[in-house]
Amino acid sequence: MHIIQRTDMFTFSLDTVLLANFCSITKDVKEIVDFGTNNAAIPLLLSRRTKKHITGVEIQEEAVEVALKSVAINKLENQISIVHADIKDYALEHKSSVKMIVCNPPFFRVDEESNVNDNAYLRIARHEIAINLEGIIKAASQMLSYGGKFAMVHRPDRMIEILELMKKYDLEPKCIRFVYPKPHKDANVFLIEAVYKGNTGLKIEQPLYAHNEDGSYTEEVMKYLGDEDD
Amino acid sequence: MHIIQRTDMFTFSLDTVLLANFCSITKDVKEIVDFGTNNAAIPLLLSRRTKKHITGVEIQEEAVEVALKSVAINKLENQISIVHADIKDYALEHKSSVKMIVCNPPFFRVDEESNVNDNAYLRIARHEIAINLEGIIKAASQMLSYGGKFAMVHRPDRMIEILELMKKYDLEPKCIRFVYPKPHKDANVFLIEAVYKGNTGLKIEQPLYAHNEDGSYTEEVMKYLGDEDD
Repeated sequence: MHIIQRTDMFTFSLDTVLLANFCSITKDVKEIVDFGTNNAAIPLLLSRRTKKHITGVEIQEEAVEVALKSVAINKLENQISIVHADIKDYALEHKSSVKMIVCNPPFFRVDEESNVNDNAYLRIARHEIAINLEGIIKAASQMLSYGGKFAMVHRPDRMIEILELMKKYDLEPKCIRFVYPKPHKDANVFLIEAVYKGNTGLKIEQPLYAHNEDGSYTEEVMKYLGDEDD
Repeated sequence: MHIIQRTDMFTFSLDTVLLANFCSITKDVKEIVDFGTNNAAIPLLLSRRTKKHITGVEIQEEAVEVALKSVAINKLENQISIVHADIKDYALEHKSSVKMIVCNPPFFRVDEESNVNDNAYLRIARHEIAINLEGIIKAASQMLSYGGKFAMVHRPDRMIEILELMKKYDLEPKCIRFVYPKPHKDANVFLIEAVYKGNTGLKIEQPLYAHNEDGSYTEEVMKYLGDEDD
């Protein structure tokens, strides 16, 4: 699999790989939608797990171009569609239409500086400029049909906010998995899956360690990264 | 240390031991209050970590008697007080008075049957009969002074409810640690510490495993259980 990455744009990270492997793809899912697909890393990674149709929605025109090239190189035009649109508009135009949405959102609030040298592409991918957490969760809630699933990756320091927003928009958290950079460290990432109008009952899955004590990738992460460059 | 346990009453569990070791005892804390102290297991365990005064509040008269005996046998009457009271009344009589409250609450809703053979003592310790989650969290909020800490242990399937109630009563979750029965299993317990009127910013601490793959206690748990019977 080849994923094209422009070095001046957002490059997909381990978070993306973990999310693509965490989300549950059940039988009732006909199509998967990826909010803010950027270079289509999540749809491409998902295509290794499923034959279901995947739509990547992306607001940045330049990223859409890169995503389309990546899909073409991998000859996945029949399985993956890339749509140039604002998530908010796209959700309103496709209300209650899908059973599965995934999203690796911008992690930082507009007032948080991740890197002052970020260019416009990076800022939109990293910061809540085009859309914020509430916008994403609201859009997911609008677009999911009854019992549909929404899977996301984010930072633990925003978990409380995410749980509150999910509650507000009828998304019931069913499963959380915390990602630890290595043993004996605090979690720096978490994966969450919620069900639209689902019953209560949260499961905390086994921890996911990114690295071993010696800094090498863990067996589980190696499995996910496995044949990316084959 | 000797902790008296009546076999027909609630016997303290690993949850209790983990909570007594998880809660942070900072310099500003002058007194620690244990809500629903039962046989005083938490005060006795805490007395191994600190010389600060500890008050155990307990609604069941028979449990109060057992707790007093345990305190006396360990010659800790100067450090540990046992109060026979309803947490709700006690909190109202001691508003904004302490910097640290801990609680291992009943885990089950009244409608959940843990064991139909439970006697009255066990039902009150295990089920939300005398007080429910909201009652406990509200009482903690009333009794804590600004910046005071509340530490609790509970089941992950009620985490969302707990976070919502903490929000409602101005307790900001600062630290959560999930407890896994063994590697590769979902968490079955979690430890949480919140600060009254604290700033946002949640930390997810490293996982705590109770048992190794072979069923033996992990090194960390062994350390906490260590010299209990010395």
